[in-house]
Amino acid sequence: MPPPARAGRRAGLLADGREILYFDDPSSGSLPDPPPDRRDLPPLPPPAELRRDELVDEWVIVATHRQTRTFLPPTRDCPLCPSHGDSLTEVPASDYDVAVFENRFPSLPAAELPGAPAAGRCDVICYSSEHDASFARLNDERLATIADAWAERSEALRADPGVAYVFCFENRGEQIGVTLHHPHGQIYAYPFIPPRAERMLASASAHLERTGSCLACDLLAQELADGRRIVAATDTAVAYVPRAARWPYEIHVLPRRHVPDLASLSDAERDELVRLQADVLYRLDGVFDAAVPYIAGWVQAPAREQRDVLHLRLQIVSPQRDVGKLKFLAGSEAAMGAFINDVLPEDSARRLREAAGRPRT
Amino acid sequence: MPPPARAGRRAGLLADGREILYFDDPSSGSLPDPPPDRRDLPPLPPPAELRRDELVDEWVIVATHRQTRTFLPPTRDCPLCPSHGDSLTEVPASDYDVAVFENRFPSLPAAELPGAPAAGRCDVICYSSEHDASFARLNDERLATIADAWAERSEALRADPGVAYVFCFENRGEQIGVTLHHPHGQIYAYPFIPPRAERMLASASAHLERTGSCLACDLLAQELADGRRIVAATDTAVAYVPRAARWPYEIHVLPRRHVPDLASLSDAERDELVRLQADVLYRLDGVFDAAVPYIAGWVQAPAREQRDVLHLRLQIVSPQRDVGKLKFLAGSEAAMGAFINDVLPEDSARRLREAAGRPRT
Repeated sequence: MPPPARAGRRAGLLADGREILYFDDPSSGSLPDPPPDRRDLPPLPPPAELRRDELVDEWVIVATHRQTRTFLPPTRDCPLCPSHGDSLTEVPASDYDVAVFENRFPSLPAAELPGAPAAGRCDVICYSSEHDASFARLNDERLATIADAWAERSEALRADPGVAYVFCFENRGEQIGVTLHHPHGQIYAYPFIPPRAERMLASASAHLERTGSCLACDLLAQELADGRRIVAATDTAVAYVPRAARWPYEIHVLPRRHVPDLASLSDAERDELVRLQADVLYRLDGVFDAAVPYIAGWVQAPAREQRDVLHLRLQIVSPQRDVGKLKFLAGSEAAMGAFINDVLPEDSARRLREAAGRPRT
Repeated sequence: MPPPARAGRRAGLLADGREILYFDDPSSGSLPDPPPDRRDLPPLPPPAELRRDELVDEWVIVATHRQTRTFLPPTRDCPLCPSHGDSLTEVPASDYDVAVFENRFPSLPAAELPGAPAAGRCDVICYSSEHDASFARLNDERLATIADAWAERSEALRADPGVAYVFCFENRGEQIGVTLHHPHGQIYAYPFIPPRAERMLASASAHLERTGSCLACDLLAQELADGRRIVAATDTAVAYVPRAARWPYEIHVLPRRHVPDLASLSDAERDELVRLQADVLYRLDGVFDAAVPYIAGWVQAPAREQRDVLHLRLQIVSPQRDVGKLKFLAGSEAAMGAFINDVLPEDSARRLREAAGRPRT
């Protein structure tokens, strides 16, 4: 059997000079060049600024232009839907499979600033032209196209010497502050290694030095031997609730093979991994029979440093602690970093395991 | 002039064996022994559990009994109001000034567990018997009684060899998950130094070693010299927005004198500091002409270790980024620890400075 065909790519520019890339499902065949952006856009807003928080030695991003960003527009004004007639959106094409473009309201400075690390970039990735679609319900082909886009964009962004870390993630749900309902994720190329990735690197490095083995591989072996927190597993990937989960629902999805990032997986491994991601999200909605808010983010190795330390890992976290009740990060979490989880990890894993899995499509 | 009289103290026990302490305003005079708790309470829930998150080397607290905690009860069922007739609450007295008692739904394990650090404790501190009061509008005398209670309880809790760090804080606002509206705060005695305090210790230690001086003292001097982010200042205390504020509204309130904790201040210094806290919170409500949600927490030195490194600091943070708009911690913040602030710190400081200050009462 020949390997499945992979996504096709087309590139264009938006009216204010931002890049847009189309990743086309193999079944969409060969498509014409993307249409031009016919809008008359104002110049880009002033860049974000990085400031050093000396109290904890971390970078903080100040992005005041984001105050004016589009906030819960009605569906007919959705900027992520395709353009139709005089209704011109961020995506000039009249239809698309997956579109990736630079955010007009980026959270990271696009140019080097004195005293701060070099430039970053914030991309938006639209998962579907259908406004009411959701990641967990996309078909297998589309999931593979998205995974290709993540892998390819991560490689392209980390090749920029100013980029230190690439983070592909999705926020879903008005309850956690999402301002656009259209199914989409984001790709941040940070000019620094973000604080939590720094700490994961430090822990994994210490473990590697002490034991000679990968922390994630060792923890995964423990979870598989224990079994109580496994949600689902395939030949090449595993989804489990970590023993010290911080959120009411927290699921980690890993390839069994030790790889630093999405681009290092084979096509078959990547396809299976992203299907397992969709399966977990499908189960999560099933537990509450509702569209549950979540953050799903890929922990990859840094762009250049310590490429052999971190094991690729998707972290899905949801603040939904009960029907109609959310967990908030208040005093202990937000001010002191000490998380309190109201839900026993063994219980959330069991509920996810018992929920219906995603049907293959 | 004689020094102002300080709060009187009375102690009792609740029906399930938890401690309750009353701190009485000096003007309340000498009060009778507190009444007994006439309720028939079920035994205390099973203790919380500490689990180690090896991925970032931090403790996480699993407290599943908290799922059943009281959730936004109607005012007539408020467990923090005084007891009246057959309406029996957590506070047996028919009136009180400030009451401190152990939380029936604690977030920290009350007994030592194998493989985890020793016991912690979670206290509730009620600021007023009036259900609709707010911290910023309490009178000077009551603020001093609260500050005395914080200082005294912090000293008592850190004397326990199992306690590593005492954190006094208030969460206000349903928007950030507060489940009881009655004005109250919390005092957590952690059996470990919480992650954010650890990082503040590391930064301040490194600065001390490098320069021989206190990081907080040096940053305070810079802020005073710059002036743009100062909100209010007195002879002994200063309130300012840090240059790298993470939240739309973030204000730090510090004594000018380098002290490790609330108990190390003179009574006059402590009274002035807590009045400045109330002044800042009063201004914060004034900016939006609304009861703005906030987290206000005291960074103190650890119970025993490195007592000379950290400078006492109140951190007030609010997610209110605009009228009707909150900042949420989503992908970049929650998953990667990289904060994006939509509000320029110089702007929030100016708005707070221009808002009306708290009238002395």
